[in-house]
Parts: sequence; structure tokens; C-alpha cells
Amino acid sequence: MQTRDIFANISPLDHRYSRGESFSELSEYLSENATIYFQAEVELALVKVLAQRGICPQDAPQEVEKAIKELNTEEVYKEEAKTRHNIRALVNCIQKKVSKETRPYIHFTATSYDIVDTANSLRYKKAAEDLILPQLIELEKTWLEIAEREKDRVQIGRTHGQHAVPITFGFTIAEYVSRFGERIKEVEAKAQKLVGKFSGAVGAYNASSIFFDDPEEFEKEVLAELGLKAGEHSTQIVAAEAITDFIHSLVSTFGVLAAFADDMRHLQRSEIAEIGEHFAEEQVGSSTMPHKRNPINYENVKSMWKAFMPQMNTIYMDQLSEHQRDLTNSASSRFVPELIAALISAAARLNRVSKKMLVDQENIKKNFEQNKRMIVAEPLYILLAAAGHPDAHEAVRKLTLKAQSTDLSLKDLVAESSDLKGYWENFNDKQKELILNPAKYTGIAAKKTEKIVNNWRAEFNLN
Amino acid sequence: MQTRDIFANISPLDHRYSRGESFSELSEYLSENATIYFQAEVELALVKVLAQRGICPQDAPQEVEKAIKELNTEEVYKEEAKTRHNIRALVNCIQKKVSKETRPYIHFTATSYDIVDTANSLRYKKAAEDLILPQLIELEKTWLEIAEREKDRVQIGRTHGQHAVPITFGFTIAEYVSRFGERIKEVEAKAQKLVGKFSGAVGAYNASSIFFDDPEEFEKEVLAELGLKAGEHSTQIVAAEAITDFIHSLVSTFGVLAAFADDMRHLQRSEIAEIGEHFAEEQVGSSTMPHKRNPINYENVKSMWKAFMPQMNTIYMDQLSEHQRDLTNSASSRFVPELIAALISAAARLNRVSKKMLVDQENIKKNFEQNKRMIVAEPLYILLAAAGHPDAHEAVRKLTLKAQSTDLSLKDLVAESSDLKGYWENFNDKQKELILNPAKYTGIAAKKTEKIVNNWRAEFNLN
Amino acid sequence: MQTRDIFANISPLDHRYSRGESFSELSEYLSENATIYFQAEVELALVKVLAQRGICPQDAPQEVEKAIKELNTEEVYKEEAKTRHNIRALVNCIQKKVSKETRPYIHFTATSYDIVDTANSLRYKKAAEDLILPQLIELEKTWLEIAEREKDRVQIGRTHGQHAVPITFGFTIAEYVSRFGERIKEVEAKAQKLVGKFSGAVGAYNASSIFFDDPEEFEKEVLAELGLKAGEHSTQIVAAEAITDFIHSLVSTFGVLAAFADDMRHLQRSEIAEIGEHFAEEQVGSSTMPHKRNPINYENVKSMWKAFMPQMNTIYMDQLSEHQRDLTNSASSRFVPELIAALISAAARLNRVSKKMLVDQENIKKNFEQNKRMIVAEPLYILLAAAGHPDAHEAVRKLTLKAQSTDLSLKDLVAESSDLKGYWENFNDKQKELILNPAKYTGIAAKKTEKIVNNWRAEFNLN
Amino acid sequence: MQTRDIFANISPLDHRYSRGESFSELSEYLSENATIYFQAEVELALVKVLAQRGICPQDAPQEVEKAIKELNTEEVYKEEAKTRHNIRALVNCIQKKVSKETRPYIHFTATSYDIVDTANSLRYKKAAEDLILPQLIELEKTWLEIAEREKDRVQIGRTHGQHAVPITFGFTIAEYVSRFGERIKEVEAKAQKLVGKFSGAVGAYNASSIFFDDPEEFEKEVLAELGLKAGEHSTQIVAAEAITDFIHSLVSTFGVLAAFADDMRHLQRSEIAEIGEHFAEEQVGSSTMPHKRNPINYENVKSMWKAFMPQMNTIYMDQLSEHQRDLTNSASSRFVPELIAALISAAARLNRVSKKMLVDQENIKKNFEQNKRMIVAEPLYILLAAAGHPDAHEAVRKLTLKAQSTDLSLKDLVAESSDLKGYWENFNDKQKELILNPAKYTGIAAKKTEKIVNNWRAEFNLN
Repeated sequence: MQTRDIFANISPLDHRYSRGESFSELSEYLSENATIYFQAEVELALVKVLAQRGICPQDAPQEVEKAIKELNTEEVYKEEAKTRHNIRALVNCIQKKVSKETRPYIHFTATSYDIVDTANSLRYKKAAEDLILPQLIELEKTWLEIAEREKDRVQIGRTHGQHAVPITFGFTIAEYVSRFGERIKEVEAKAQKLVGKFSGAVGAYNASSIFFDDPEEFEKEVLAELGLKAGEHSTQIVAAEAITDFIHSLVSTFGVLAAFADDMRHLQRSEIAEIGEHFAEEQVGSSTMPHKRNPINYENVKSMWKAFMPQMNTIYMDQLSEHQRDLTNSASSRFVPELIAALISAAARLNRVSKKMLVDQENIKKNFEQNKRMIVAEPLYILLAAAGHPDAHEAVRKLTLKAQSTDLSLKDLVAESSDLKGYWENFNDKQKELILNPAKYTGIAAKKTEKIVNNWRAEFNLN
Repeated sequence: MQTRDIFANISPLDHRYSRGESFSELSEYLSENATIYFQAEVELALVKVLAQRGICPQDAPQEVEKAIKELNTEEVYKEEAKTRHNIRALVNCIQKKVSKETRPYIHFTATSYDIVDTANSLRYKKAAEDLILPQLIELEKTWLEIAEREKDRVQIGRTHGQHAVPITFGFTIAEYVSRFGERIKEVEAKAQKLVGKFSGAVGAYNASSIFFDDPEEFEKEVLAELGLKAGEHSTQIVAAEAITDFIHSLVSTFGVLAAFADDMRHLQRSEIAEIGEHFAEEQVGSSTMPHKRNPINYENVKSMWKAFMPQMNTIYMDQLSEHQRDLTNSASSRFVPELIAALISAAARLNRVSKKMLVDQENIKKNFEQNKRMIVAEPLYILLAAAGHPDAHEAVRKLTLKAQSTDLSLKDLVAESSDLKGYWENFNDKQKELILNPAKYTGIAAKKTEKIVNNWRAEFNLN
Repeated sequence: MQTRDIFANISPLDHRYSRGESFSELSEYLSENATIYFQAEVELALVKVLAQRGICPQDAPQEVEKAIKELNTEEVYKEEAKTRHNIRALVNCIQKKVSKETRPYIHFTATSYDIVDTANSLRYKKAAEDLILPQLIELEKTWLEIAEREKDRVQIGRTHGQHAVPITFGFTIAEYVSRFGERIKEVEAKAQKLVGKFSGAVGAYNASSIFFDDPEEFEKEVLAELGLKAGEHSTQIVAAEAITDFIHSLVSTFGVLAAFADDMRHLQRSEIAEIGEHFAEEQVGSSTMPHKRNPINYENVKSMWKAFMPQMNTIYMDQLSEHQRDLTNSASSRFVPELIAALISAAARLNRVSKKMLVDQENIKKNFEQNKRMIVAEPLYILLAAAGHPDAHEAVRKLTLKAQSTDLSLKDLVAESSDLKGYWENFNDKQKELILNPAKYTGIAAKKTEKIVNNWRAEFNLN
Repeated sequence: MQTRDIFANISPLDHRYSRGESFSELSEYLSENATIYFQAEVELALVKVLAQRGICPQDAPQEVEKAIKELNTEEVYKEEAKTRHNIRALVNCIQKKVSKETRPYIHFTATSYDIVDTANSLRYKKAAEDLILPQLIELEKTWLEIAEREKDRVQIGRTHGQHAVPITFGFTIAEYVSRFGERIKEVEAKAQKLVGKFSGAVGAYNASSIFFDDPEEFEKEVLAELGLKAGEHSTQIVAAEAITDFIHSLVSTFGVLAAFADDMRHLQRSEIAEIGEHFAEEQVGSSTMPHKRNPINYENVKSMWKAFMPQMNTIYMDQLSEHQRDLTNSASSRFVPELIAALISAAARLNRVSKKMLVDQENIKKNFEQNKRMIVAEPLYILLAAAGHPDAHEAVRKLTLKAQSTDLSLKDLVAESSDLKGYWENFNDKQKELILNPAKYTGIAAKKTEKIVNNWRAEFNLN
């Protein structure tokens, strides 16, 4: 086995972001060993169907199964150095390990990309099921627990970075529970739509037609062994759109992570300081803030998004493959595992840091109160307008300016104002209360948070 | 009305690609007039629901309907010059045109982006239904007619730009019928998922909660007037993912157009010259080729794709909007109509040129014959291997080299070969024929083409 | 003249961002009228050289000059509708307006792209000289005046959004004076490197060689008439790298604008609120802050950057043009003027808003003081370490924790500490002062600011 | 040392494209070991200057030099696991290895990014000098040798993939000699502009000002030890534009490689087949073509370009770093080495394959002759027009149509034509020859090729 100091590697995914225990798990789906493994699985599926159809020896599948257990990547690469063709090398390596009788049925009627593209669809689908989705759902769970815990904690809502009207911190998080939940479903849906092919060198089933009257049925059977379906049309390769949609689902999911990270990192600014990380497990819910608030994990997630989002351009360019295919998507598509590893790593990181997130109750309150007087401007204006005040916007503007300069309470100012007094008296109690106590002016933030939490808890069976 | 020499415009979409009769149709959905029009429609929907709920005067909807018919964009822009706020300007303009009683109900409880984002979802959904999808389906129809017409025309299949094994020209086109058909369905699905919002300044229904016990129900009613649904969660803005998915569906559709254009343009190369454009309607099917084959329309389509595909980066960046929103997606999202116009223009152009596509029967045959002898290498190798020949690949390689150098027919060469003769006699008739007549070795190209054509004809009701 | 309601246009550059007086100036370089105008200028340059060489009639240049004055774009487009070729149309239109004797010399030995690419290099170079650079330098001037004015105003420096050590606000702005100054020089340098060509259909001077023994010299003369040079090698088109570098210089300049905009928009956050816009000219320097701080102009600039930065992908894709050229860069390169217009518009906007920028003296001080005690940790740690304290970092950490919890001054704490007292006494006066008065700990922020301001003032002759 | 099966790695750069002997060379500049190594070099430079200034012990530099020789990455990572800070970890590791007296001067007055950014500029500059430029120049040499060898070989020039007018194959290659030569110079220039910094936590030299009256001079000295200069302004980090320009120079260089690859791969199409690879060294110049022409190396280069070109988007996004820096460029900038490795790998691959490039003399001639009759249309038209023929374009169009249908030679046709005969007789001999022998109509292709070859041979001293 050819080994190497991991720090001699070039990709940060192979030195810096690969040192945790989870790397070996990623490697099972995303390394070159995985590439070879899944390709061998496709060759095995083929032989199974040939045996079922009585074309090859009945014990060929067991032979092949045994052979591919003994395979290692280095061996295949050594063979490739001779053949100058990666799949031919794989086939030769398997053939060497099976009986003379079974040998002709390895790769029978197949073209290289029947194997390569089917294997990629298979491993990305499996990676989605076994790695990506579980990690995303774990993060979703963490977030919905925060949303639930904080559903009533009043926070100032912000637009343009300016204080607007109140929400709750749970509602802030519920945004991400909802957006992320939708993305998880999209990833799931598009992973399920990844397809394989077994239609030969240019997609017309030329080779398989020599032996089978029903080459499409034959293709269906091989793919069914792997839990895949065939695309409607293929050339030498699977039509690009299934993987394009799948990668889009990942990239847009990454965008939601980056958006969350950006929001949290700004909430950690020295002047805002509404959230932080606690140091020890038992501190959950404590209002004691840690000393250091460098939001390095959130920064890292945004940074990884910047590194990988543009890969979508590559995917789009790879939609173009001349005639029944040119090979210009071959090297580029080998980098897809990097994107997947980066996304999983970012989600795992956010999960770790989100689990330790705590709210600085003092600061969230302090920030809320900073513009308390301004907050009521909106409901007051709306109520006045609804009550028929001819120039509600202007009246409120003046009132709030006065409130700022005089330090008088709004209630007193309204009482003083001959213009507004009459309107005020017609407001109902709930309406008056909203204006006198801005912390009540959170709309249905808490209720909506609950509803969203319940929806996604049910959707993903999170109890 | 502020008019301008169209050639004084900066965007090629507004001077060069805007001179056909279809521009006014695009403009109905994609211009600034359209922006204002759809925003006004949202304001109207609001008033309708207020009237239904008995909150505003019963004839307010008619008043508003009349008012917005009289509105023009210039008026709104003049008002914006004063208010420095585009939606406030629109509201003021409508208010000026309605009765004092109705006035307070214009924009009642709404925030600007309740209007802006809902209007955008509405107009993009409508643009999809009325402009994009019909144009795409028209092209799909043209392509499936070519596929059907050419389903039996033998063409050499190519990989790496090298001759591989045979297909039919119909099968070549069927690739695009299938890929494009799937895209059309994706565009349709994602257009239907565009959502609106009526949840106020930060998404917590703060303002509408003052008046309604059921603000989510109220939102639902307003959006239902427009044929839209609400997103599960919104802040000041609709969650970015619905539009992100929609634009991805358009960009990936554009990719299929570019892939088609690239394929055709290479088929028009001087040395290949398999297709061309005929000059007059009555020439369809003729083998007379026009003199000039500069594939300028195909080049144009690829070029437009290069110009617009990268806009997806903008869309992904716009997924990040700080806290309950920053405004950094405002200007950028105003360029979405450019992408839509470019896609429609490219599809229309491809439709025009595809309608005139004809196959140079002589050249397609000449190219096929160029490597006829090599073509049979594949089936021969496969048959020998399946029949248990211990080194089929090598045997065939030698045979084809001999065929090239001696000019002897393959049949004669096999007959001469003591090694191969025995195998040959065991092949069945169909198998022998495939080898002796490479033009038969097209697998199920024709049948598959038919199946795909029928599928999409049914899907889109094209008869 | 074909006119249109400007609001019927699709591009925001042609309706929304085109209403100021500057649009007509942009249009002079960036519209389709400009395209035609500069192409005609190239045709004129050709005729001038032919006359100088005594090949065409001596008064041909005047004839052509007169002809192109009478030209209008609509006429050329009408001709293009017949010829299906834009440059042929232009040539025909000019030919119709000149004498029979001069006619053969219009476009003499030229290929279309001798005209198109040379005209583009010419107009982008001119646009750089006349539009882009003056606008950028104006903004540079505004910024350096702010930097100078604010060079001594202490501000807390921030990293990770966390308070770090002090700088001055002038130094904050000096960052942009410096980065932007460098970009301006890069834009200038790359604009000067834009080249033309007059080497014919495939770049080998095939046509001009028929008549001239020195076709490269002939090319040089034609381009010299326009103030351009020839590239070392061209095909049908100018080598892509000159424009690629030029656009990179613009896109990276746009990045500096976006970075500035992001910094300013965060300084306007409700909780930070260090800067704002004043409303009236006479308020400059006042510390009274306006009520409304929505940083919409900064948001707009970042948004425009998001819309146009990805265009660089198009430019890179356009480096690939098959053989002596395919036409797939034709439509895409027509969108370059959009990027230029957007950049100029963003710079002009930033200039307007920067001119009105004022510092909220109260808030900048309040923010500085928030972590004043922490600030001194750095110099104290460094001084202790330098003085040989074996564990300076830990000692300071403890001290600052104590300072936070006890509210004692640092001086008292040091005095109390048997561990530190000895070190303290060895510090020199300047060093002690830095620790006791954190506002002094601004390094050479002011001096550096001055130096940078002076450098760029001299570079661009700004007095 | 933590080792790993190389095929367990995720990045193709670390498994597939890392098996040659050159990987260890790449690793010296581009791995995590390299990161640590160059950072340690910066720490050493600092101590050297401190010793020169008499601040730290005179033998401190030797101590540090010895210490960093003993350093290994794993040790630093173990320390980072404790400190949670990579540079602090490095500093601790060095400090453990030096005397008590030297210890305080490790990292003296520095902030982490004084080290990180300076080390990156240093290693990218060195990578340019030692790896990138030599590899690029080697390829340039190979290309210019082909250009020279083939400078007289007539080839049909193509536009739109259509035969246009003749060039020579050497001229085709000279395009790339010229474009690539310019890029090499740009890479060199921008590598030389990479700058370091030693200005402390927020760029104001706060810490160094405590000890030095001339902190800028001090910075200059430290950087001079490394062969670097300082940027005019820095914050915690070096201003982004130097690296942005450098990466642009690499990406645009990659674009030239991809353009070349595309051109060559199309010349290898079955129907064109003008070039191929020979199998053995001694075959150079032979016209015997190898059997297999799959242009997999050219496809690979284009594919790698598609994978890495979009990284420029990341670089542009990283121009934005809030205030005196946020950390969102940290992870993303760690991927720069991938781009460098990919570019070097692509250049090396093109060099290998270009060295074996041979021209199929038969095919290049066959293709040239395919439209020989059409080729003369251009010079004939130009000569007629210049001679005052009132409708030269139309006359030639008719003549060539006739030539195609009658198979008569052009000379005979002209002789027959009463319209043209008179003009013909006035043409000079050279002009007549051009029309009668289209292979002469190559303009100055050969001469220009020579000139370009000589220019770059001199520029890069290639003999």
C-alpha cells in the first residue's frame, strides 16, 4: 500500500479537514478507493443478472464477489499504468481473480461509462443516504431545539442592519429550520433521481442488442440490483441533468449554512453580542458569556461556502459534452467528492457550535431596548391610518422625534396631543398594550416558531 | 412618456435582441413597466381581501382597479424621486387616485417586500406559464419532429470526436428531446413552487396581528387572489430557495440548449458537414445543401449561455441576507429578467434554425463509411469473447489492422483465419449480419427514438 | 428613429439606472450607437492610410468622414436585415454615401473583425480614459479627503467583528485610498494594453499581402490613426488576453468598492452607528446624526457587484475560440458595456454618499471605550514578554479578568501585583502611557494615513 | 508521522494526479508541510532582524534555524489541538526548542497574519519562480519548436469551423506561442508583486511602535530577509489585490492552455485528423499516424480548466473582508495550492503530449484541397474590387458557383468571362499566382511565425 504523510497532501480536505474520526467514513464514499469499490459493485451486479438469465455460470456472482473483496486500488492503478485505461484495468484485475469460465462475462457488453456513471450515481446516492442526509438532519434537530427553547425570547428584528420591529430569537432560528428543512427534502429528492445506464458505447444498446431482445429490460435488471433506475436516454454517459440537479441541491443547501453562519457571526459582534458559545456541556441556558467570541466556526463555514459554491459553474459547463460524449467532464467530475466532503464538514461544524450556542440575555435585552421608542412607531402609524387619520405617517414621525428629544413616554405624548388623543381612545386594549409595551409587538413569532418546529420534527421523525 | 432611441440603450437585450415583434410580449413581463404592473396587482389583491372581510369599503377594489389602470411608470418614478422609496411611491400614486375612504387601505399592514417579492413570484410564475414554457415546448415539438423524421437515418456515433459505433440521426436528436423534456418539467415544477408573502416587516406578522386574529389565514387569502401560496417562513423577504431553484431550472435548461447548439455546430464543420439549413420552406427533406454553413445561430446560442450561466453565482450569493434581511439582493435581483429574456430568445432562435435543419445525406453516409471496417470490431470482439475465445480483444485488433492494410473484406479475412473460423460458424444469422453490414449495428436506436418521441408528445400534448 | 418608452426596457441599466444626466455620456461609449460609431471610425482610419499611401483618392477621407457623420444606427440595422451581416451592412451604408471612386476602398482588404475588435479596443480604451478613470479618481479624491480629515479620530480596530486594538477612522479609510489607488493604476495600465488588429480573415494578412509588401507596417499605420497598437499575433480576432486583463482590472476594482460598501454598511448598524449621512451640505463635520441610517447606497453597491462580478466567468470562457475563431464570443462580448456602466454607476453612487459621510463622534467614542480595559492587554503582554516575564500571556489574562470583575484600574492592579510591579518600573514613559491611555495605542495610524493620502494625491494630481 | 493510503484521499490531486515523481516537488510548496515550513521561515526572518538590531541574543537566529529544522507538522497540529490557534501552536513549538533567552523574541510584536500572509506570499512567489514558471517556459519551448518546424506547412484556416483562407500549421501554433508567452510574463510580473506585511493586529504597527521608532523600516527589514516588500497599507492582512492579480494571471494562463487543448482536440476529430501523437521518440516528422486518436490528454486539460477556472469567483469574494478583517477568507484561501497544482499538472501534460505531436501530412493536405476553389474567392474579389469592378462580390459568387458545378478551372472560367477578362489582364504576376495557386495565399504566415518564435526564444533565453 502506497502511503504518505497526510501533511504532504495538497488539498486541505486531505490534511487539515481530515483529521477527525469521521474522515474514514467520508473516505468510504468519497476517496479513490470508494470509486473503485463502487465500480466493482456495478461489475458484480452485471454478473448477477447474467447468472439469473442463465447466460454465465451460476456461481460466477460468488466468484466475482470474492474477487472484488481481494481487489485493492493500487493493483488497479498498476494495471492502468499498462492499459492506459482505468476501467479496462479494473476489468483485467477482476478477470485475473476468476475462473476461465466466468472471465468472458466480466464487463459483458458494457462500455466503460456504463460502469463509471452508474457507480457514481450509486455512490452519491448512498453518500446522500448514509452521510449527507443524516448529518444535515442532525443539524436540523439541533436548530429546532434552539428554536423551541428560544421561541419566546424577545429580540429586535433587523432590516438593513437597522432595528426594525420585534421578533423572538426562536423565530430567528425557525427561519433556518424551515429553509434548511426544505433543502434537506430537495437533496433527498434529487439523490433519488440519480440514474444509471447500461446502454453501451453510444447509448443505443448496440452491444447488448446482439445478445438480448430486450436490452432495456436487461439494463433495468442490472440497475435494479443496485437500487437504481435508468435514465430515459443516455449516450456514452448518463444525461447530465440528474447530477446537475443533485449538485445544485447541495450547493443551495450550503448557501443556507452560509446564511446562518453570517447571521450568527454578526450577532457575535462586540457591539451586538447577543449570542456566544458556552464552554462546558452543563452550562446550557446559562447567561454567563465566555470571554472570547471570535466566531471562527461561523467564519469557517462561510469561507468553505465561498470555496465550493463556484464549483456549480463547473457542473454547468459539464452539461456540454460533444456528440455522444467528449471526455472533458472526466477530470472535472472527479472533484465532486470534494464538494460533498466540504458540505458535510461544514454541517458537522455548525452542529457542534450550534449545540453550544447560548444567548446573552442581558445584551439581547439591551439591544431591544435601544430603540424601544422607535419600535412603536409602526403599530401606532398603522392604527392611526386605519382609524382614518389623514396624515398618520407624518404625525408619528413628529411624535417619535419628540419622544427622542424630550424623554417623555409615548403615552404622555399622545395624551398631550390634541390631534391624536381622540384616535387613541378608540383603540382596543390589545392595541393600546402593543404600543405601550413594545415587547408584546412580536406578532405571531412564538406561535409560528412552534408550528415550524413541529412540522420538521414530524417530517424527520425527531423526538 | 420618456422615450429613447432604442440604440442608445446599453443592454444588447434592449437594442440588438429586442427588435422583433416578440419584444413587446417579453416587455409585458420583464420590463420596469411590468414590475410596477405586478406590484399594483398585489396591492389590488390586498384590497379585495379587505373588502371581502368587511374591513374597507365594498367598492374599494373597483376603485383600485381603475386607479392602477391609469397608473404609469413615469408617474411612480417621479414620486420616487421625492420619497426615495419605490413602494412608498407606488402607494402614494394609487392613493392619489382613490377616495378618502379607500385611501387608508392601500398597502394596509403591508411592508414593501410583501409587495415586491410577491409581485416577483407572480410575474415569474406568469412568465413561465405564458412565455417560457410555451416557447420551450414549441422547440421540443420541432425537435421531436426531426427525431421522428430521422429516426432511421444511420449516422456514425462519436466519442472523443472519434468515430465509435453507429446510431441514427434521430437518436442523436432524441437525446435532446429527452433532456429538454425533463428540463421543461423541472421549470414548470419550480415555477409552481414560487411563493409570496404577506407577513410584514420582519416576517412575524407584527402589523397584521394588530387587526387579525388569523394573520396567516389573511396572508393565504391575499395570495390566493393571485394564485400563489405563502412560504412556510419569511422574514422581510420570501426565503431565497424558491427563486434559487427556479433560476437553476432555467440555467440548466439553457445548458441543454447550449449542448445542442455545440453538437450541431460541430456537425456543420466543413469536414463533417452532416447538417445544414435549407433556404426555402418547400425544400424540407431535400439533400441539396445550401452553400453557406456558418453556424451563426448555434454560435449565438452558446454565446448567450456563456453570458448568462454565470448569473447563477449571483443567485447563490443572494441566498445570504443578513438577519431579517439586508438589501444587498435588491439591485442584483433586478437582473433576473435579463436571464429570462436571453433564454427565451435562445430557444426561439433554436426553434427557427431547427425548423430549417436538413441532413446532408451524402455526407452523413460518407462519414459513416469512413471507418466502416473499424465499426464491426466491437460486435466481433464481443461475440468472440462470449463464445469463449481466450483473447478476443487481441484477435480482433489484428484482424482490423489486416483489414485496413489489405483491403480484404472482413468476411474473407475470417474465412481465412483458422483461429476464428470455428467461432464464426456458431454465430446466429442476426449476429453474422451485424458484422457483415455495419449499418445494421445501430442497436435499438430507432425504436428508442420512437419511444422517446411518443413519451414527450403525450406529455406535452403535441399532435 | 425607433424610440421606446424607457420603462419598456428589460435591463435595469436601461430603465432604472439610466435616468440621470450621465446616461447620455455612458451611451456615447456603451450603447449600440457607440458600437456603430467606433466601427465607422475604424473604417475611416483605414481610408486615411490608403490616401496617405496614395492608393485611394486623396479626398476619400473627407468623403468618408462626411458619410459617417450622416450615418445612423437604424439605417445600418435595416441594411443588416438584408445582408444578415452587421459589418457588411455598415460597409454598404458607407459606400452608398461616397463617390464611385472611393467606394472600393471602404473596408479595403479588411475582414469584419479587423473592424469589430479594433473598434471595441478603441472604445473601451476611450471609455477608460474619458469615463471610467475620471469617475474613479473623483471617488479616490473624496476618500482621501475623508482620510485626511479623520486621520486622528480614534476608532477601535476590529478583527472577526470583535474589538481588537485601536486605529483611527482616517486609517480605516486610508485602506481604501490605497487599495483603490492601486486598482485605478491597474485599470489605466490594462486599458493602455488594449490592442487592435488589421490582419485579415485568419490573421495571416492574406488580403493585405496582395497589395502591400509590408502588411504589418500597414496595420501599424491604420491603428496609429486611432492611437492603438497591434497585438503580436491575431487570428480573425485579437488575442483574448488583453481584454481579459482589462475586465479583470475592472472586476477587481468593483471588489474594492464592494469591500468598502460592506465596511461602511456594518459601521451603520444600529448598535455600532459610527457613521451616517448628513442631509445638507452645510452640516459637514457636525456630530448630529440623521434619523434614518438605512445604508441603501452601500447595499446597492454590494448588490451590483454581486450582479456583475460573475461576468468574469464569461470572459474566461471567451478565451476559448476554436481554431482561427468560432463566433461563440460574439453575443457574450456584447454585454461588456453593461459591466462598465455598472461599475461607473457604483463609483458615482459611492462618491455621492461618501461626500456626505459623517462620523458620529459620540458613538465612535462609546464603542472605543466599551473594551478599553481589554485593549491594553496586548501592549502589556508584549512589554512583559520583552522584559523577560516567563509567562506574560497568562499573567495578563488574569489581570484583565480581574480588571473586568473588580472595576479597579489597571494601574492599581499592577501596583498591587508583586509579580508585575518590578517589570512595570522598568517600562519607559511612552510605554507606560500607552498602557494607561489606550487611546494613545494607535501605532502610526495617523502618520501612515497622511503618507498614503500624500502619495495618491501626488499620483493623481489632486489638489 | 501520520500516514495514509494515498487512495483514501478525497482530492484527485492527492490520489490520481499525485503519483508521478513530481508530486514531492509540488508538495514542497503546496502541502501543509510547506505551509508550516514557510511560516517558520518568516519567524526566523524576524529573529534575524531582531539580532541585527541588537534586541535579541546574537545567536538567536541560529537557535531558531536549528529549531525549525527539527519541527514537524504533526507536532504543530498536536499543539494546535490544545491552543485552538495554528500560529500560536507554531510559536509554542519553536519556543520549546530554543533557550529561555531567545524565547521572548519568537513572534516578537507580530500578529498571526504577519506570519500567515507573508508566508503565503513567499511560498507563492517561490512556487512561481521554482515550479510554475519553469514548467510554463518548458511548454513554451516545445510549442515554439513545433511552430518553427511547421512554419511552412500549409493548412486551411478556419472560422466558424468552416474553411476560410490558408495559413500554415506553424502559424496556428504561433498563436499559442504568443498568447502563452504574454501570460508567462504576466504570471512573472504578478508573482513579483506579491507582498508581505509586518504591521501587527490591525495594520497600524501598534505593537512594533512600542519598541521601534521606525516600525515601517523594521517591517521592511524583516521582509527583505525573505526577498519581499511590504504593501502600502495592510490591516490584519495584506490587501487582497496582489494575490487576486496573481491568481488571475494563473487562471488566464490556464485559459490559454484550455484554448490550445480545444483546438488540438478538434484537429484530431476522425473527419479532420490533421494531428496525432506518435508512439516513439524517433518517429518525429513521420507522417505515419497512430491508430488511436482519442485526444484524452487534451480533454483532460480542458476538464481541469473547467474544474479550476471558477475558483476565481472565490478569490473575488475574498476581496471583501469586514473592517480590519473577518476570517472568512481563511479556509477558502487554503485551496489556492490546488489551483497551482492543477495548472502545473496541465502544463506538464500538454508538454508531454505536444512533444509527441505530429502532423498527418496527407490529411492536412486533403482538408486544404477540399475547398481550394472557394479559397481564391477572397483574393479575386478583393482584386476585382480594387480594380474598380462595380459589383465584385456578386461576380465572384457566381464564378465560384460555376466552378463548383462545372469542374472547370478558375483560370478557364475567367478567360471565358467577358466581364472579368479585362480585369484579369491587369493583375500583376504575383496576384495572378495567388489566385491560380491557393497554397500561395498564406499571407505572411511563415514570416510572422518566425518572428514570434524568435521573439519568445530571446525573451526566455531558449536555445
